[in-house]
Amino acid sequence: MISIQLIHEAAARISGAIRKTPVEECPILSDLLGVPVWLKLENEQITGSFKARGALFSLLKAKDSGIQRVATCSAGNHGKGMAWAARQLGMQATIFVPSSVDPTKLDGMIRMGADVHTSRFPGYDETEHWAKHESSRLGLPFISAFDDDWVMAANGGTVAKEVLEQIPDLETLVLPVGGGGLSGGASYLVKELKPDCRIILCQHQGSPAFQKSMEAGEAILEMPAIETVAGGLEGGIGRLTFEVLKTRYDAIELLNEEEIQRAMAWTIKNHQMIIEGSAAVVVAACLRSEFRKPKGPTVLVLSGRNVAASTIAHVLHGNRL
Amino acid sequence: MISIQLIHEAAARISGAIRKTPVEECPILSDLLGVPVWLKLENEQITGSFKARGALFSLLKAKDSGIQRVATCSAGNHGKGMAWAARQLGMQATIFVPSSVDPTKLDGMIRMGADVHTSRFPGYDETEHWAKHESSRLGLPFISAFDDDWVMAANGGTVAKEVLEQIPDLETLVLPVGGGGLSGGASYLVKELKPDCRIILCQHQGSPAFQKSMEAGEAILEMPAIETVAGGLEGGIGRLTFEVLKTRYDAIELLNEEEIQRAMAWTIKNHQMIIEGSAAVVVAACLRSEFRKPKGPTVLVLSGRNVAASTIAHVLHGNRL
Repeated sequence: MISIQLIHEAAARISGAIRKTPVEECPILSDLLGVPVWLKLENEQITGSFKARGALFSLLKAKDSGIQRVATCSAGNHGKGMAWAARQLGMQATIFVPSSVDPTKLDGMIRMGADVHTSRFPGYDETEHWAKHESSRLGLPFISAFDDDWVMAANGGTVAKEVLEQIPDLETLVLPVGGGGLSGGASYLVKELKPDCRIILCQHQGSPAFQKSMEAGEAILEMPAIETVAGGLEGGIGRLTFEVLKTRYDAIELLNEEEIQRAMAWTIKNHQMIIEGSAAVVVAACLRSEFRKPKGPTVLVLSGRNVAASTIAHVLHGNRL
Repeated sequence: MISIQLIHEAAARISGAIRKTPVEECPILSDLLGVPVWLKLENEQITGSFKARGALFSLLKAKDSGIQRVATCSAGNHGKGMAWAARQLGMQATIFVPSSVDPTKLDGMIRMGADVHTSRFPGYDETEHWAKHESSRLGLPFISAFDDDWVMAANGGTVAKEVLEQIPDLETLVLPVGGGGLSGGASYLVKELKPDCRIILCQHQGSPAFQKSMEAGEAILEMPAIETVAGGLEGGIGRLTFEVLKTRYDAIELLNEEEIQRAMAWTIKNHQMIIEGSAAVVVAACLRSEFRKPKGPTVLVLSGRNVAASTIAHVLHGNRL
């Protein structure tokens, strides 16, 4: 179970190896919303995303139990985080990736010493089924990218802990939601420590697993694949993360592909930072004219920067701001 | 005069407000050069470049003398740094900018509360002449962007101090050279504390003021304007910075426009980071097949990320890596 204690343990154990990323004011959004708006720069985290936090903590916990080799499934940030964390700890990570994996990311994982297996399937869900089967055949413990208490505590919990230290008068926290590891852990800590603080969850309109899960009253674990630059927002929500999130949020924002891509270009133009589509969703929400104005200091979590150069070229070409 | 003591003073006074930026290993360059290669991420510095360090320290020193208003000339990183530092300290900065100023940068300075005056001239040198004249007419002390001991100590000195703490077995430091504030201060500290450490200075082939100054035996203060994405490398070297640099370097690398733009695209592709042309020159040097292999841990200072979105689009379009 996630708990304040588990989040504190995660923060203590990953500190030193993980960067305490800065918060940076966004003057344009502050002007637009009439309150101080801050960006929490997890795009500047080691490995390029918050996922390094959960990867490191879960490998530390595995190592505590005498485990030296683990398996996971990810073509993206979690895989990169696991490859990095395994190298830090002298452990072996076996990473199963979809056949659609970006060559730069694949190369990065291999350079960090991971044992990478490419699937026959282009999609994540089928690759994960195969990955779990293979892990079990090889006798390797399988670590989920998001639906895991350690991952939730370290990914979302420690980010929120830093945000509350950096902006103690936080009133609104705006988070991207994919599987729910970041948003679940962060919402948990914020609602425990500052229950009046508002939590805004941002999803892709084409893959709104959390909203659908709220309507259904249970976690929707899989969603049809969509074409998007925000791959981290695609797919179902986790069982554990849904249980945490369902009573700990104030609003859901659903953003479309065009808004997300425009927000990526906007962030390059105005902050000279690359953020991936899954991160840009929180910027896109605040840029909407109908976005409800927060009453006090607001923090947007920019979750990562791992995006192919060709995608950046495409997004800039389509959005000359 | 620059001194170890002045650098320590600068570091102490700016700490807290300034980010101690991380160093991040570059696995591809490490493989290529056969030694650990690290990037010092001043592109992640507040205001997007190392210039915030010198701006803050020089305003703190000015404030010590009872000064509340200062003037400077810059269309780029120094101007942005001064606008930020003045706001931090409750001071007023008057910034003179060339007519060719990028609108995003102009907007950024104004949003931070600076008093910005746009020149009739598109070029820097003519704008600086006018700016010095205007400052004197208005009775405002003029702070140089680079040719100043405070600026040198804080810009280059404090960056090098952090690098030596982060990579104590540093063998080679690779620096961009424009006016010489960063490279002068950094070379000074490194050669005082670790005289065997190699200093590689990187300039634009089309504007090699430092090399020409070495040939001439005196500082060349102005150079003809060139068309480049590396505006910070263009123009003459400072008198004070030349005196420091001339006995404190081991090699000069001159990079052409194509190499610099390719290095910008390379950094986006491989590190998902925007760096400006003036920063990319150090990456470009290491990517050359004829670059002399360092004997031990090597640090490249990535000086900043302030580049227009249109330039990024252009660079990515021309370099599909």
